[in-house]
Amino acid sequence: SWICKKSTFHGLRKTAATFVSASSSRFVGNLLVIPMDGSHWVGIKAIAQEMGRRGHRVTVVMPEVTSRMGPGKYYDTVTFPVPYDKAFVESVMATHKEIMKKSSHFVTCVTRKNKQTCGCKGFPLTLQDFDAVLTDPMVPTGSLIARKLGLPTVNLLRGIPCSLDMKSAGCPSPPSYVPRFFSGYTDKMDFKQRVINTLVAFLEPLLCRVIYWHFDQIAYQFLGEKVGVAEVLSDSDIWLMRFDFTLEFPRPLMPNMVLVGGINCNVRNPLPEDLEPWVSGQHGFVVFTFGSMVSELPRETAAVFLEAFRQIPQKVIWRYTGPLPDDIPENVKMMKWVPQNDLLAHPGARAFITHAGSHGIFEGLCHAVPMLMLPLNGDQPDNARRFASRGTGVVLDIFSITTEILLQGLNEVINNTRYRENLQRLSALHTDRPIDPLELSVYWTEFVMRHKGAKHLKAAVHDLNLIQYFCLDVIALLVTVVLVFLILTVKCFKMCFRKLGKKRKQD
Amino acid sequence: SWICKKSTFHGLRKTAATFVSASSSRFVGNLLVIPMDGSHWVGIKAIAQEMGRRGHRVTVVMPEVTSRMGPGKYYDTVTFPVPYDKAFVESVMATHKEIMKKSSHFVTCVTRKNKQTCGCKGFPLTLQDFDAVLTDPMVPTGSLIARKLGLPTVNLLRGIPCSLDMKSAGCPSPPSYVPRFFSGYTDKMDFKQRVINTLVAFLEPLLCRVIYWHFDQIAYQFLGEKVGVAEVLSDSDIWLMRFDFTLEFPRPLMPNMVLVGGINCNVRNPLPEDLEPWVSGQHGFVVFTFGSMVSELPRETAAVFLEAFRQIPQKVIWRYTGPLPDDIPENVKMMKWVPQNDLLAHPGARAFITHAGSHGIFEGLCHAVPMLMLPLNGDQPDNARRFASRGTGVVLDIFSITTEILLQGLNEVINNTRYRENLQRLSALHTDRPIDPLELSVYWTEFVMRHKGAKHLKAAVHDLNLIQYFCLDVIALLVTVVLVFLILTVKCFKMCFRKLGKKRKQD
Repeated sequence: SWICKKSTFHGLRKTAATFVSASSSRFVGNLLVIPMDGSHWVGIKAIAQEMGRRGHRVTVVMPEVTSRMGPGKYYDTVTFPVPYDKAFVESVMATHKEIMKKSSHFVTCVTRKNKQTCGCKGFPLTLQDFDAVLTDPMVPTGSLIARKLGLPTVNLLRGIPCSLDMKSAGCPSPPSYVPRFFSGYTDKMDFKQRVINTLVAFLEPLLCRVIYWHFDQIAYQFLGEKVGVAEVLSDSDIWLMRFDFTLEFPRPLMPNMVLVGGINCNVRNPLPEDLEPWVSGQHGFVVFTFGSMVSELPRETAAVFLEAFRQIPQKVIWRYTGPLPDDIPENVKMMKWVPQNDLLAHPGARAFITHAGSHGIFEGLCHAVPMLMLPLNGDQPDNARRFASRGTGVVLDIFSITTEILLQGLNEVINNTRYRENLQRLSALHTDRPIDPLELSVYWTEFVMRHKGAKHLKAAVHDLNLIQYFCLDVIALLVTVVLVFLILTVKCFKMCFRKLGKKRKQD
Repeated sequence: SWICKKSTFHGLRKTAATFVSASSSRFVGNLLVIPMDGSHWVGIKAIAQEMGRRGHRVTVVMPEVTSRMGPGKYYDTVTFPVPYDKAFVESVMATHKEIMKKSSHFVTCVTRKNKQTCGCKGFPLTLQDFDAVLTDPMVPTGSLIARKLGLPTVNLLRGIPCSLDMKSAGCPSPPSYVPRFFSGYTDKMDFKQRVINTLVAFLEPLLCRVIYWHFDQIAYQFLGEKVGVAEVLSDSDIWLMRFDFTLEFPRPLMPNMVLVGGINCNVRNPLPEDLEPWVSGQHGFVVFTFGSMVSELPRETAAVFLEAFRQIPQKVIWRYTGPLPDDIPENVKMMKWVPQNDLLAHPGARAFITHAGSHGIFEGLCHAVPMLMLPLNGDQPDNARRFASRGTGVVLDIFSITTEILLQGLNEVINNTRYRENLQRLSALHTDRPIDPLELSVYWTEFVMRHKGAKHLKAAVHDLNLIQYFCLDVIALLVTVVLVFLILTVKCFKMCFRKLGKKRKQD
């Protein structure tokens, strides 16, 4: 329960939260981290670790039962009890269902008075001593808590499918060249595509309502204000966006949005001792992972892959948590967990078989490893298409895969040098930036803690309603004025002509 | 002439323009700098110097007769002859008239075949060996040359009054919260202000046509294409914008826009030996400069200032190039040139009397020196108003100034601590950034040289016309569809009712 875990968590009082200018000595403060489970945890963990390493007191709140979250060297962990078990979490992760409901548990926990049920007594009070909240707004638990406590927020995210992130940040997304999620369009659309893209843009607010219906309810109950998730998110001080423009199409950004795509690229460790000699073969190796959501494949699909791997000279390292098949070829190593980024950074990496999740493709991009992409869901089909369109890999359909198609794809990305060449060019653009994305994330998190927010970067769009924002009232007025002027002119002319006619008749 | 100055300019051939990734060893290349005269030169010079210091071959092109431009330690200077003298330049600078015509001379020079007139023979060919052009697009000479030669461009600017910079970068500027230049509005506008702001936004393209009429002609002749200045500027790879959001109101930006406000803040030198003891008095000192445009005041106005200075205990350092008056008080030092930034950085600086030019106010902000602002023209009234609204100084009207008003203002900013406190808070925000603005400018200039541009940061807005950009065609289609649907529904209902009515009658 909450109370028995409190020992690992050495006090919430402010240690040295005096304001110190950036240029002079260091500022040390208290950071509250409210992360999201699954692959979303990777980036948040990197920031939490680095913040702790720099001397800040970092407290990560997580449910007792998680898929991937866990303790770290540089942060404290506070867990809260949940009424579900590991099997439920895994099924939630695999099916994407009930994620919102499951994830709202911490808010329920903080709200609930009954300490027997939850063990959260006294928590909200102590929470106020934090300087800022770092969270993943895809699940807005952290944003709700931050608003309740009046704390500034730093968001880390890849993007919210219904563009709630852009809406809440007040960021313009013209549908004429900003393709919507899942549309599969590029930034160059023909008329038909622009019609559909605009329609999707119109429907986005509705989609947001559907996705965040559960949290809109919670927001209302928890905060006791008439606000929904969109308003709560618009409080956010800094948006750390996990993308960049080697992958995404260029689009407007707001002053409080910071691009940190590839945040975990430089978080590296040496390979485990048993792996290093194994991967250092003459033909190199292939890395094969399907992210944290899918860790085992149906038996038939697995057989297709094994058969293909048997026919290539490269070694294959496969992240696979299910029961091992009997007929694993000699060049294949199946492991419950693989150090993906470290493997991709190895010079022997020849290809990367991936579901095109955002972390994976940025790691592949960073280390310039050609990709065989088999997208499953979420932003993966979009990621894969965008990436493939830049000539960095091949997209295959996982649901109709055969050994032959797979072999062809593997041979293509491994032996056709054009993929690696394109990747090296893109990777040079991606990695060429004034400051490492992890360092930049830490910088802006510290900034928000030092200055108690970043209000001066927040545009004045939040005080405007849609009519005011698009100046529809102004346009209506101007059109009216022009119309009235035109009508009067016409009437005037008519009258003049009539009088002239009468006069002529009289003459 | 061109030819006799060529000796100072040690060759244009590429020295080591091999592509080197940012992470590994350094990239050294050739940079062509085409600056603008006057205060605009300050920032460009800082980048040119720093690029040269880092080993790049930097070539600055300037007319033989200039107001402020001149040679530097780390760059070569190439001059071209012009048919005017220093007096003409000073009058142009003071009156702001004929700036465009005067500044187009280099293009005329490059175009002209007649070497006796100009001495530019062979120049365009050698120019092609450069990796990039750094320029101030307010006067688009550099942008024209870059387009002609197919070279990537880096722009450094504060902003173009008719928003041509935003238009060319494809950056949205919603008139509902982005106040237009010279309007004096903030980002919170009432209905009337939004109407006027929207009207100004509608008229901006017209204003651009008027301002850039001369260069639109030149662009057409020089490039032999049907393009105007707006299209030429939209080629730009990186826009280094000399502002930040402690001064400006937060607004959308594009991926290729980089904020470098306060670029010359850290470009510091020790004070001259004669000044140091003079400024180190008990009561501190006041810095008084009116920028490069105005260096002497009418005799009566100067007398007003002298009389006020006589009555304060602070010393005053006044940049003044005219003939010295007879009755200079003991605490006043009038100098033809003052090291403004170094003086403001001195702990003894108590107040800064300024015309609120963008360089001056950023230097005042950086060093947190309260300001007495007497704006004259250009962006100065807007700068002054925005700054004063943040409680960092007092705005006075230079045209109706009296000794009494001036004394009152001086006493207010010197003795009321709230100005310095506000400035210190703002200065802490302004100077707290991940990377120094000069370093950032150099970084992106090098980036453009390394990667032969920054195409991946350019949004796909330039292929769209206004109707497509605002999806007016799509909206027209959707409205038509909805209308047709409504009309059909109404007709259908009418028909049904009629039939029903007939049937009833028959019954």
